[in-house]
Amino acid sequence: MTRVAVVGGGVVGLSCAWWLARSGCSVDVVDPAPGQGASYAAAGMLAPLSEVVPTEDHVLRFGLHSLQLWPAFAEALETDWGSGIGLRRGGTLLVAHDVGDAEELQRFATLLAREGFEATCLGSRAVRDLEPALSPRVVSGLHLRGEHSVDNRAVVRALLSACARAGVRVHRHAGSLVLDCDRVVGVRTENGLTHAEVVVVAAGHRSDEVLAAAGLDGGRRLVRSVKGQILRLDGTPGLLRHTVRARVAGEQVYLVPRDSGEVVVGATSEDVGDDTRLTAEGIHRLLQAALTVVPGLADHELSDAVARLRPATPDNAPVIGPTTTPGLLLATGHFRGGVLMAPATAHAVTALVQGAPTSPLVEALAPARFGRPTPAAGRYATALDQS
Amino acid sequence: MTRVAVVGGGVVGLSCAWWLARSGCSVDVVDPAPGQGASYAAAGMLAPLSEVVPTEDHVLRFGLHSLQLWPAFAEALETDWGSGIGLRRGGTLLVAHDVGDAEELQRFATLLAREGFEATCLGSRAVRDLEPALSPRVVSGLHLRGEHSVDNRAVVRALLSACARAGVRVHRHAGSLVLDCDRVVGVRTENGLTHAEVVVVAAGHRSDEVLAAAGLDGGRRLVRSVKGQILRLDGTPGLLRHTVRARVAGEQVYLVPRDSGEVVVGATSEDVGDDTRLTAEGIHRLLQAALTVVPGLADHELSDAVARLRPATPDNAPVIGPTTTPGLLLATGHFRGGVLMAPATAHAVTALVQGAPTSPLVEALAPARFGRPTPAAGRYATALDQS
Repeated sequence: MTRVAVVGGGVVGLSCAWWLARSGCSVDVVDPAPGQGASYAAAGMLAPLSEVVPTEDHVLRFGLHSLQLWPAFAEALETDWGSGIGLRRGGTLLVAHDVGDAEELQRFATLLAREGFEATCLGSRAVRDLEPALSPRVVSGLHLRGEHSVDNRAVVRALLSACARAGVRVHRHAGSLVLDCDRVVGVRTENGLTHAEVVVVAAGHRSDEVLAAAGLDGGRRLVRSVKGQILRLDGTPGLLRHTVRARVAGEQVYLVPRDSGEVVVGATSEDVGDDTRLTAEGIHRLLQAALTVVPGLADHELSDAVARLRPATPDNAPVIGPTTTPGLLLATGHFRGGVLMAPATAHAVTALVQGAPTSPLVEALAPARFGRPTPAAGRYATALDQS
Repeated sequence: MTRVAVVGGGVVGLSCAWWLARSGCSVDVVDPAPGQGASYAAAGMLAPLSEVVPTEDHVLRFGLHSLQLWPAFAEALETDWGSGIGLRRGGTLLVAHDVGDAEELQRFATLLAREGFEATCLGSRAVRDLEPALSPRVVSGLHLRGEHSVDNRAVVRALLSACARAGVRVHRHAGSLVLDCDRVVGVRTENGLTHAEVVVVAAGHRSDEVLAAAGLDGGRRLVRSVKGQILRLDGTPGLLRHTVRARVAGEQVYLVPRDSGEVVVGATSEDVGDDTRLTAEGIHRLLQAALTVVPGLADHELSDAVARLRPATPDNAPVIGPTTTPGLLLATGHFRGGVLMAPATAHAVTALVQGAPTSPLVEALAPARFGRPTPAAGRYATALDQS
């Protein structure tokens, strides 16, 4: 039974841990506050198309792949947990508030069409027929039917429960990598050493810190922090049917409804280092855009506001795969897509640990692209075999 | 030694309790959460002129009287507490953001002049010379030099400490009035009965509930709840020198700076019953107005947001004085002015309990004006003498 330790108990780390345990590994997760980082702030959109950036093809392909895995992943998770994780299949409605926004949205539709994706273009009346809560001033819309959302906080709770049932040990402490002859052999917490043949670093924006503490920083920062402020508004269920992503006078805002009546409103994207303060401007911009596009949110309760740090790599794609350090795998840098990409990452990491083949989609995300070359398959396998 | 029980441990109830104890009474305060109601949300403005309404002469006169008492009250409190309560004497700057706002401000200046108060009118340049953080778009201003502010939360902490030192017993429980032969003889909590010759109801928006529970509701509601949402923004000290009260496209907002760098931004005023939810619209309107008039607040941290209920009487003036029920005094209904009017209320209540003469200012606030006639002085004094 392969022993694996996962450093980082966010949605990515916990998904990997759960999937590894289900595949027969003995798994430890080390995180002082599991699920309280970016996973806690996230909106839970499973929306690779809505977020597509022309230069980020790997992100789109891996996201689409993970979106396909989500329904089965959700079902397995809900069965294990015994409760729902709020999977909603209403699709995404992209809307434009003014004429300038509509031009931008049209360019986006052209981009999607060029990539071969179908999106239904809608005029003002048609978009409000689909989503009556939208302001009558909304000019146009684009319906992406295949995108979903989940309640990310429920997902974390479900993963923690599923991990426990699968025998995963969750250590609520800070942990540091332990090396022996340049090979990672485990993780140390204040409660002692946990031996592992493979250690997966899934520590989000703290991943460089974890590597650097073991002298494995590679001389170059792998993951930068991108701050996001995000709100939760609580009201009567049913106001919104779809995830709404709006362009409002050049600002972008998304509104993700839950069955409970909660609407998640996000998010700022700020390159300000490790700062998690809520700011007057950040909250104001989110509320301004949200209330402009869905006036019926005015009376909703502002029930939650948080800021967390997204982990972004230099090319904004996640970094998943082995490193030149035997025993050390990375699964981090998921930026805006941690919840979306969790199932695909869990599958990939489990395959890598088992020495099973991975797809070109996963190979494209290997650390090697940032000058952290993947060791020859043989060498990595050997490291595992020796243990 | 006269025994007095005060129902309600907000800034008014605690001020009364402290002052009564200093004057030789034996005092109990009953409140499940002292200082956590409207006193917690308040901004701490000592600003009777800025808030003047033409039809509310009693409010203005009593407020001005209390403003004069504040410096000595603050000094006594700080001496007792051993720490500061953040008294700031920068005055209030009323500012108008657009031409319509400026016309309104001009009408306000005329009203003040008619009442005999001096206010310095300022053009755009002059107002920004006084307060450089104001937006260059601010059209005009009015400087009210004699108004102050205090840190209302520090005031509550100081009052609790001063009360303890003065021997006041604070019971952190809900309490109900106890009557014997139509006379109030004490307050009952889950821990037992506290006897008192005089009971002061200073329970803010809950005052009617307290009276009604003892069958003393008088058939008519004395105090209605007016909800206020209020924010605290934290940043580098020194951004603002004055309390700023701004008219911004017809909206009103006030910004009260603290020495710490905190700026209190308030407040909504909503007739929605006993509802203390923060709402999307409430927070948005406050931030919108605040950032428009002081753009430098953008990067401030949104460190606190709360909603509480102000107690307002039918004529918006507090109700202070004896009732037709022997042993029962009221000190409630301070609406937006609880912090401002606390010293004058404490003085008035202490005089009433001691049977000392009170001024016409205080007599004008007696419950009698709402059909709760003040008993003849003799009868009230007798009630005290018998005890």
